[in-house]
Amino acid sequence: MKAAVWHARKDVRIEEIAEPSSPEPGWVKIEVAAVGLCGTDLHEYAHGPIFTCVDQPHPLTGHQGPVVMGHEFSGKVVELGEGVDNVTLGDRVASMGGMCCGECHYCQQGLLHLCLKGAMFGFHINGAFTRYINVPATVLFPLPNSVTDVVGAMVEPYAVGLHAVRQAMVRQGDTVVVLGAGPIGLTVLQSALAEGADKVFVLELSTHRQELAMQLGAAAVIDPGEVDPVEEIKRLTDGLGADVAIECIGHKDTAPLAVSLIKKAGCVVLAGMFTDASTINFLDVAVEEKRIVGSFGYLMEFPEMIQMFSEGKIDPKPLHSKTIALDDLVTEGFEALLSKDNTNIKIIIEL
Amino acid sequence: MKAAVWHARKDVRIEEIAEPSSPEPGWVKIEVAAVGLCGTDLHEYAHGPIFTCVDQPHPLTGHQGPVVMGHEFSGKVVELGEGVDNVTLGDRVASMGGMCCGECHYCQQGLLHLCLKGAMFGFHINGAFTRYINVPATVLFPLPNSVTDVVGAMVEPYAVGLHAVRQAMVRQGDTVVVLGAGPIGLTVLQSALAEGADKVFVLELSTHRQELAMQLGAAAVIDPGEVDPVEEIKRLTDGLGADVAIECIGHKDTAPLAVSLIKKAGCVVLAGMFTDASTINFLDVAVEEKRIVGSFGYLMEFPEMIQMFSEGKIDPKPLHSKTIALDDLVTEGFEALLSKDNTNIKIIIEL
Repeated sequence: MKAAVWHARKDVRIEEIAEPSSPEPGWVKIEVAAVGLCGTDLHEYAHGPIFTCVDQPHPLTGHQGPVVMGHEFSGKVVELGEGVDNVTLGDRVASMGGMCCGECHYCQQGLLHLCLKGAMFGFHINGAFTRYINVPATVLFPLPNSVTDVVGAMVEPYAVGLHAVRQAMVRQGDTVVVLGAGPIGLTVLQSALAEGADKVFVLELSTHRQELAMQLGAAAVIDPGEVDPVEEIKRLTDGLGADVAIECIGHKDTAPLAVSLIKKAGCVVLAGMFTDASTINFLDVAVEEKRIVGSFGYLMEFPEMIQMFSEGKIDPKPLHSKTIALDDLVTEGFEALLSKDNTNIKIIIEL
Repeated sequence: MKAAVWHARKDVRIEEIAEPSSPEPGWVKIEVAAVGLCGTDLHEYAHGPIFTCVDQPHPLTGHQGPVVMGHEFSGKVVELGEGVDNVTLGDRVASMGGMCCGECHYCQQGLLHLCLKGAMFGFHINGAFTRYINVPATVLFPLPNSVTDVVGAMVEPYAVGLHAVRQAMVRQGDTVVVLGAGPIGLTVLQSALAEGADKVFVLELSTHRQELAMQLGAAAVIDPGEVDPVEEIKRLTDGLGADVAIECIGHKDTAPLAVSLIKKAGCVVLAGMFTDASTINFLDVAVEEKRIVGSFGYLMEFPEMIQMFSEGKIDPKPLHSKTIALDDLVTEGFEALLSKDNTNIKIIIEL
C-alpha cells in the first residue's frame, strides 16, 4: 500500500510499504478515510528529526527510523484484535493522536497525555498517511452519522484547543485573548466561545487569518504590527487586562507578552511549542498573583469534541482549507504551508 | 511620642512625632505592643524608596514623604471611631499589614490583597514603630490569651507563608520544595507541613538556616553550593520531581530553577520579590503542563493563623531571634540584618 514516509528533513517519500498484519489483542485495524496535516508534521518535515526516533528505539513502541507520518485521522474499523469491546467491525471512528503506557506514575493518575513513555502516531510508530493502520482500541471513538470523515479528522486539533481553554479554567463572561490565529489558535477561539467566554480578542499579523478569526466570532482582532497590543487590550478591558490569554504561537517574545495582557489573578495558558528561551521579570507574576499554565494534548476533550461537532456547538468547516491526495502531500501540503501564503489553515488528505 | 521614621535610603531616624488624633468613623486607635522587622522594611532601608511615596501622594491614603515604618504588629485597642463593632476597648489585637479601598474591581471580587489602591502601613501611611497608630477596624483581629504580643506580631509573616502554600493547592501527601530558608521560606515550610505535605525539602546556603529548617521539620536540606539541586530532588522523588516548589528568594535564577524541580503538572509558587529578569525556555512548562502561580500577601489566612497559633498547630517561637528596643532599630535591627550574619530571622521591637 502507498504511504507517506519520513526519511529525513525535507525528505518525505510517497512509497510502497507492507500492509500491517492482523491486530494484536486489544488493537484494531483501521482503514483510513481522512487525515489532517498538523503543524507538528510540518516542523518534522522542515526541521526534523524532532520527535522521530532516529538514534534509538522508542521506549514504548520500539519503533526506530523512517516512519509513516499522520496522526489526525478518521477511518473505518476493518479488523478487531482479541478482547476489543469498545468498537465493532464497520464502525466509523476518530482516533486520538497517540498512545500511552498505562503503567507509569502519570498514567496511573489518569494523566494519560503526560505519560512518561507516550508515543505519537506518525512519529513514534507508523501513522495514518496510508491505507491501513493498527492502533490500540482505547484511542478510538465512534463517529455519529452527523460527523463526516473529514470533520472526524479534525477532532484531534480541536481537542487540543478545547484542552487549552480548560487549562485556563475559562468561566462564563470571561474576556480571553488568543495569541496567534493559526490552526490551534482558531480552535482555541471557537472553544473559548463555546465554553462561555464573553469576548475573545485575537492577536494576529496575517490579514487572511484576521478575517477568519472575525468570521469565527472574535470580538476584535489586534494586529501587533499596527498597535501596541498591551495598550489595546487595556483599552478594551476597562484598563484591567484580560482574564485569560492563550499563547498559540510558541515564540519567545509572545509568552511574556501574554503575561502582560492579563489582569491580576488572571491566567496565561502556554499552548505553543517554544524553541527559544524567553526573558521575563517574574515580579509582576508574583505580586499580581498571575498564573501561567502549560497545555499539552488532551484527555477526554477528544470524545467531548465529537459530541460538540455532532450537536453543532462548534463548526470546524471554516478551518478546512482544502483536500488533497496522498501523492500531493509534499508539494500541495508541506511546501504550500511553508510558503508565505497564510490562506491554508487545515489541509486534509483523503485516502 | 517616639517613632522610627524613614526619611531616605539609609536614613531612618528615631524622632519625636505628634500622637495621632482620635480615630475617624470606622477606624481604631491602637497602643502598639510588639512589631516585627520585615525583609520589605530592610529593602526600603537599604535600597529605598521602593514603596514609600516620595514624589506624589498615595492614591488611597494621600500620604507623601517621610513615614513611620512598621507593619507587622500587635497591640491594644485604646479608642474606637464611630460605628466600629468588630473590636472593643481593651482588646488585644493583631493587625493586617495594610488596607484596601473596598471599591475597585478586585476589592469587589473579594481579592482585597490585590486592591488597585492598596496601602501598606509603614510605607503608604504611618506604621507601627511608635506608641500609637490609627488603622481601619477591618484589619484588626482579636488575639486569644494563649497568643502573646510577640507572637501576635508574627501573625503577618506567617499569613504570607500560609497564603503561598494555599496558592500551590498543596494536598495531603505532597512533596514540597522550599527555595530559601529566610523568614518567609521558614513560615512556608511550617505551613506546608501543617497543610498536610508529606515531605518538605529546603534549599538553603546558610548553615544556621539549614539547621533551623531541620529543627522545624524539613525532611532534608539541600545546599546548592554542595550538590546539584535538580539531581538531588530527582533522587529524593523517585526520579519524578516534587509536586510543588515555592520560591521565597526572589532571585532571577531561582524562579527557573523552581520550575525544573517539579514534576509534570506540578506547581511553582513565586513568593519572592524579583528585581532582575529571568531567562527561561517555556517549552517544559507547556509540554509538561506545569503551573507557575504568584503569591502576594494574604486574605483570611491572617485570622486562620491566629487560630493555628492558638491551637498549637504552628509554633512561631523558633523564628523569633531577638527582641530589641525602638532606639536600637537601626543598629541592632537593619544593620544587623545587613551584616553577613545569617542567625537573625525575625527581630521583634517591643514598645
